[in-house]
Amino acid sequence: MKKTPHESKTEMTLMMLPSDANPKGNVFGGVILKHVDLVAGIVAKRHARNTNCVTASVDRVTFLKPVYIGNALILSARLNYVHKSSMEVEVMIEAENLEDGTKVRTGTAYVTVVALDKNGRPTEVPQLASKTADDKKRFKEGVSRMQLRLKEAGKI
Amino acid sequence: MKKTPHESKTEMTLMMLPSDANPKGNVFGGVILKHVDLVAGIVAKRHARNTNCVTASVDRVTFLKPVYIGNALILSARLNYVHKSSMEVEVMIEAENLEDGTKVRTGTAYVTVVALDKNGRPTEVPQLASKTADDKKRFKEGVSRMQLRLKEAGKI
Amino acid sequence: MKKTPHESKTEMTLMMLPSDANPKGNVFGGVILKHVDLVAGIVAKRHARNTNCVTASVDRVTFLKPVYIGNALILSARLNYVHKSSMEVEVMIEAENLEDGTKVRTGTAYVTVVALDKNGRPTEVPQLASKTADDKKRFKEGVSRMQLRLKEAGKI
Amino acid sequence: MKKTPHESKTEMTLMMLPSDANPKGNVFGGVILKHVDLVAGIVAKRHARNTNCVTASVDRVTFLKPVYIGNALILSARLNYVHKSSMEVEVMIEAENLEDGTKVRTGTAYVTVVALDKNGRPTEVPQLASKTADDKKRFKEGVSRMQLRLKEAGKI
Amino acid sequence: MKKTPHESKTEMTLMMLPSDANPKGNVFGGVILKHVDLVAGIVAKRHARNTNCVTASVDRVTFLKPVYIGNALILSARLNYVHKSSMEVEVMIEAENLEDGTKVRTGTAYVTVVALDKNGRPTEVPQLASKTADDKKRFKEGVSRMQLRLKEAGKI
Amino acid sequence: MKKTPHESKTEMTLMMLPSDANPKGNVFGGVILKHVDLVAGIVAKRHARNTNCVTASVDRVTFLKPVYIGNALILSARLNYVHKSSMEVEVMIEAENLEDGTKVRTGTAYVTVVALDKNGRPTEVPQLASKTADDKKRFKEGVSRMQLRLKEAGKI
Repeated sequence: MKKTPHESKTEMTLMMLPSDANPKGNVFGGVILKHVDLVAGIVAKRHARNTNCVTASVDRVTFLKPVYIGNALILSARLNYVHKSSMEVEVMIEAENLEDGTKVRTGTAYVTVVALDKNGRPTEVPQLASKTADDKKRFKEGVSRMQLRLKEAGKI
Repeated sequence: MKKTPHESKTEMTLMMLPSDANPKGNVFGGVILKHVDLVAGIVAKRHARNTNCVTASVDRVTFLKPVYIGNALILSARLNYVHKSSMEVEVMIEAENLEDGTKVRTGTAYVTVVALDKNGRPTEVPQLASKTADDKKRFKEGVSRMQLRLKEAGKI
Repeated sequence: MKKTPHESKTEMTLMMLPSDANPKGNVFGGVILKHVDLVAGIVAKRHARNTNCVTASVDRVTFLKPVYIGNALILSARLNYVHKSSMEVEVMIEAENLEDGTKVRTGTAYVTVVALDKNGRPTEVPQLASKTADDKKRFKEGVSRMQLRLKEAGKI
Repeated sequence: MKKTPHESKTEMTLMMLPSDANPKGNVFGGVILKHVDLVAGIVAKRHARNTNCVTASVDRVTFLKPVYIGNALILSARLNYVHKSSMEVEVMIEAENLEDGTKVRTGTAYVTVVALDKNGRPTEVPQLASKTADDKKRFKEGVSRMQLRLKEAGKI
Repeated sequence: MKKTPHESKTEMTLMMLPSDANPKGNVFGGVILKHVDLVAGIVAKRHARNTNCVTASVDRVTFLKPVYIGNALILSARLNYVHKSSMEVEVMIEAENLEDGTKVRTGTAYVTVVALDKNGRPTEVPQLASKTADDKKRFKEGVSRMQLRLKEAGKI
Repeated sequence: MKKTPHESKTEMTLMMLPSDANPKGNVFGGVILKHVDLVAGIVAKRHARNTNCVTASVDRVTFLKPVYIGNALILSARLNYVHKSSMEVEVMIEAENLEDGTKVRTGTAYVTVVALDKNGRPTEVPQLASKTADDKKRFKEGVSRMQLRLKEAGKI
C-alpha cells in the first residue's frame, strides 16, 4: 500500500515573538531549527503511523535572509523520498512580513527521519506514490541526496 | 477595496509535547488558548495589514475532548465577519492522533480583534468580500454574535 | 458537606516579563489566557479535591486595556456556582503599574471546570455554601450563565 | 513617609506542571528559585515604586521537602527590614497537595533588593512602619541578618 | 574509593537572550539561579553517580554586577567539600561581554546537594580526594560553612 | 592579527529535563539543534568580537544515538576554518549518562557563521592561527566543506 506525498504534507504558520529573538532582536536560527524538526516529525508520523519516528539527520540548512520579530514564519513540509524505513522530508522556510504581506524564502531544510518498531529496530514504512511530474523530480533528487549522505557516512 | 476570507486564512499544525502537559499528562487548556490567540492575530494582520491588531475578546471556547501529548494540534483560523475596525476570527480546533490518523474536533473559538492606528485609536480595515454561500452564512452568524457581545457589554 | 467560595479562592500575582510580550511589546492575550486557565484549575481542585478537574469551557474573556511589560498581573479567582460535577470559576484580571501603584481592571473570565472520576466520568463535588449577599448574587448570576451555555450548546 | 509591610506583601499561587520537573519527576529547585526572585521583585517595587529594583543577594534557601508536579506552589512574600536603599524580602515557600489539601512548608528565602535611581546609584526608599509585634520582631531579625551579610562581605 | 574535585567539575557557557530579560532589559536573577541549580546538580551526579541528588540548600548568592542580554553567562562549578551524603558545590558566576571580551565576576553560589537512595534516605557518596593546596583550602572553608549551616538550622 | 581556535572554543554542559522531551520521552532533535546554534554563535563572537554574527548555514547534523532525559548534553564547539567574513564552527555533541558516567558521541554539526558590520555587509574577521597538526588538518577539511557548500550553492 503506497501513500502520496499529499497525504502527509503539513503547514505550520507561527507568529515570531520577542521570546524568539537573538540579542540583535531578530529571530535566532536555533528557534527555526527547532520548529523544522517538529514539523518534519509530523510529516513522518503522518506517513508511517504507529511507529516511532526519530530524526536521523538534518541536512544543510541555509539561512538566506533574517526573519524578524512580528513576521509569520511559514514552514511547508512534505516527503520527497522514502526507502524502506527511511524518509526524507523537505521543509521550505518562508517569512511573511505581516505589515505589507511580502513573503521571502529564507531557507530550505532536508530532514531524514527513520521509523523504528517497538524494539528500536528500523521498520519499513509505506512506499511513496509519486504521481505528478514534480513528485517524480523530487523523488529522483532525494535519491541523489540519500546516496551522498551514505557516501559521506562511509556506508557505500 | 474588499478582501475575501480566503486571503487571510491560516493553518497552524503543532506537535503536542510533554512540556505542554497538565499534571494528568494531557494537554492543558491554557496552552491551546495561547495558540488560538496567536493564530487569530495572524489572520487579523493578514486582513488588516499595517495596523496594530489587538485581541478585544475571546468568546466562549468549549473543550469537547481531551488533547493528548503526541497528538498534532490543528488550528484552522479564518475571518467570519468584519465591521469597521472589528474582525471576528473563527478558530476550529482539532486533534489528530498521529498513531492511527483519526482526527477529532475538540472545540471552536471566536476571537474578536480590533485594528488600531498609531495613536491607539480604532481604524477601519478592508471590508469582507463574502463570495460563497458558506462565507455569507458565516457573516450572518457573525453579525448575531457581535450584537450579542455588544448587548452583553451594555452598548446597545 | 458544603464548602464556601472562600475556602477555594486563589490569588496569583505575576511579574510580566519581556518573554510574555507580543511583537508590539505589550503582553499578548494568549499569555493571560494561559494563566487564567491555570488559576481556575487550582480553584476547582481546592473545591473538588481528589478528582480530575478539566476545563470544559472558557467563556467570553474581554480585554479592556493593554497589560504592559513590567506590570504585575493579578488574577483573583473564586467559585461562583456549583452544580453536580460542574463548577464556574470567575477570574478577575487586573494589571498593576508597579511604578506608581495604579491598578486597572483589564478583564474578567468565566471558566467552567468539570470534575471527573477515575473512569473519566463526571462526579459530584461538594455543593457551594453561599453565605454572604455577594455570594448569593454571584450564584444566581452563575445559574443564568450556565443556562445560557446549555441553551447555546443545544442541551436545553 | 513610611509604609507598612502590609502595603507591599504579595502572594503567588502556581500550579506545578510537568515542564517544571527534574529528571526524577519532582519540581526542580531552580524553578522555585526563579519564582522566589520574581515575587521578591514585586514586593520591592510595591514598596519603592518608580525606582529600579535589583536583586543584590539571595540568602540561604533551604529546601526541606520535595515539591511534586500537580502541587500548588504558594509563595508568600513580605518586607522584614528596610535600610536606606536596601530591602530584605522574606519569601515563605509552601506546597499544597491539591488532592487532599495538606500543605507543607518547604522552605524560606531571604532576598535583598536594592533600589537604584536613573543613574544606577542606590536611592533611598520609604522607611518601614513596623506596627505589630510580629513586624517589630521581623525587623530586628532583619537587622541581624543584614549585619551578618555585611560582615561576611568584609564591609564591617 | 575517593574521587577528586577535578573528576566532577562542570562548565556551562550560555548566551543570554531577550527571553532571559527582566523588564529593565537585563538578565533577571531568577534565570541565573535556575542555571546555578542545574549545573550544581550535574556536578553532584558526576561525583555520586546512580543516586538521587537533591538540592538541600542554596547559600547566600550575591549578585555583584548586572548581566546583560547578549553576554555569555559562564558558570564554573566544582565540589569543595563532601561529608557522608552531603556535597557542597561552588558555582562561580561570570559574565563575558562578547563584543570586547571583557569578563566580570558577577557572583558566587554555594549549593548543598544531598544524595538519596531508592527509598529516599541519605546515602554515602565517595569521599573527596583533595590533592592540591587549593583543594585543601576549599575543603577547610567548606567545613566552616557546613558547620555554620548546621548551627543556623539548630542542629549543633 | 591572527587568533587561535583555542581562544574561542566553548563548552556547554546541560542537564536534559522533561521539558526537553519528545512524546516518546527522549530529547527531541530540535532542542539539540537550538543549543548547537547558540554555542556556535558564542564561538563566532569570541573570534570576531564587535560584529554581528549570523548563522548562514547549519550543515548535515547526524543524530547517531538517542539522548535521554536526565543525561548531560555536552556541546564542545571550536573554529575549524575562517575565510574573510566566514567562520566554520564544529560542534561535537555528546551525551553523558549521569548514572554511570558512560559518554556517547551522538553527533557532529558544522555551522557556518558570517560576520556583518553595522550596515549589514560582510566584514573580515581575524584569520585563524592553526598551530597544532590537528588544527591544520581541521582547517584543510574545512576548506573542502566550504568549497562543497559553494559548489552546491552554484557559486563556483
